[in-house]
Amino acid sequence: MPDALHELQSAMRQFAQERDWEQFHSPKNLAMALSIEAGELMEHFQWLTETQSRNLSDEHKAQVGTEIADVLLYLLRLCDVLQIDPADAARGKLLINAKKYPVELAKGRSDKYSHLHESRTAGEDPA
Amino acid sequence: MPDALHELQSAMRQFAQERDWEQFHSPKNLAMALSIEAGELMEHFQWLTETQSRNLSDEHKAQVGTEIADVLLYLLRLCDVLQIDPADAARGKLLINAKKYPVELAKGRSDKYSHLHESRTAGEDPA
Amino acid sequence: MPDALHELQSAMRQFAQERDWEQFHSPKNLAMALSIEAGELMEHFQWLTETQSRNLSDEHKAQVGTEIADVLLYLLRLCDVLQIDPADAARGKLLINAKKYPVELAKGRSDKYSHLHESRTAGEDPA
Amino acid sequence: MPDALHELQSAMRQFAQERDWEQFHSPKNLAMALSIEAGELMEHFQWLTETQSRNLSDEHKAQVGTEIADVLLYLLRLCDVLQIDPADAARGKLLINAKKYPVELAKGRSDKYSHLHESRTAGEDPA
Repeated sequence: MPDALHELQSAMRQFAQERDWEQFHSPKNLAMALSIEAGELMEHFQWLTETQSRNLSDEHKAQVGTEIADVLLYLLRLCDVLQIDPADAARGKLLINAKKYPVELAKGRSDKYSHLHESRTAGEDPA
Repeated sequence: MPDALHELQSAMRQFAQERDWEQFHSPKNLAMALSIEAGELMEHFQWLTETQSRNLSDEHKAQVGTEIADVLLYLLRLCDVLQIDPADAARGKLLINAKKYPVELAKGRSDKYSHLHESRTAGEDPA
Repeated sequence: MPDALHELQSAMRQFAQERDWEQFHSPKNLAMALSIEAGELMEHFQWLTETQSRNLSDEHKAQVGTEIADVLLYLLRLCDVLQIDPADAARGKLLINAKKYPVELAKGRSDKYSHLHESRTAGEDPA
Repeated sequence: MPDALHELQSAMRQFAQERDWEQFHSPKNLAMALSIEAGELMEHFQWLTETQSRNLSDEHKAQVGTEIADVLLYLLRLCDVLQIDPADAARGKLLINAKKYPVELAKGRSDKYSHLHESRTAGEDPA
């Protein structure tokens, strides 16, 4: 049975081929489309407090799900055109992130990693 | 064997839990993070022609893969927090898109679906 | 004395001409650049609470100012290339917004205008 | 006579005050709003070629003008809340850009400035 990512990627590829849309699906255009959809997703949370954003109504959640779908579908289409495996890329990035944000430094802090490492230096026992 | 989407989602959840980052991971903040990463992804194509964007060097493609990973990981984290299944959402959206963009109308055209349907109306034989 | 908007627009035009960058400054590319810079601006607020975002340090505010500058400069460059007057466009939009969000309906509410008008209908005295 | 930037900024401030919207206008929320509007602006160019984006119809240009207005108005509102002067910030950034992209290096090239300086180093006469 194919992985969901591959299943969706095949469906998007076929969708584009049937409509002769491959000509429009340059990586440049797909990255724009992805960013536009990410903006539409974000719009749902724009004037909500963080707490409100954690407590969406079912109707609102369904609308958000549709925007999430758009983002995922363009992301998979971009990966297909560029021949990048999204799951492999994500696994690699998780390893990088684990090094950037060691638990003992990052715990409970949202600072960017550069600040994390600076503040470690600053707080070090000079001895 | 778990699906790649679920495997990555679990890894992100554990990553956040270990760092006590769940407090920062409101849907509002995660949607912002996703949009910011989508902008960083797009930045790689900003001044390229569409043709250039189809012909990235291996080095450039690796950098793009890292940005794709960031987008995917935040997307999965957002889905986890909201309890939305991304693959189900995407399957549902593909069905909607197939209705919005019927092959016979959309073939070779990049118009938004509202324009597609308008132009069909405009071009219809009034008889 | 020229208006600040025109002064900055002229400076950007000259900057582009001197570097032979007009070839890269298509409206499509400039709109991408603007969106990317807007993402970088937003990044400064990503993990802050709303309250924290209202109380930036001077250092942080200076960084934010630099991102604001990037957004404004690309916006003015886009207006120049498209021959759109940004102040006139903004004045026109303010009039539209005043109609969309009448004070008596919008007061203290962040709902999108379509919801405002729906809720007015719903709450209207049928008499 | 006030500068257009200050005139529009005052109008936006009054608009927000009359509607009791200052509570929603945290810098965090305004930066999100700005980024969302930048996405809507970009959407107009998403599937156009660069050449097409240089040749918009009058109707399309008017629509683009409305999106540009939204971006500018949120930018000015953000500057007002943060007490940042947008024209001063932009003047400062133009000076920085002039140093980053010297004419003799940047002419006809869209490379990021880091690459510009690298390639200068690479091409230097080793003597």
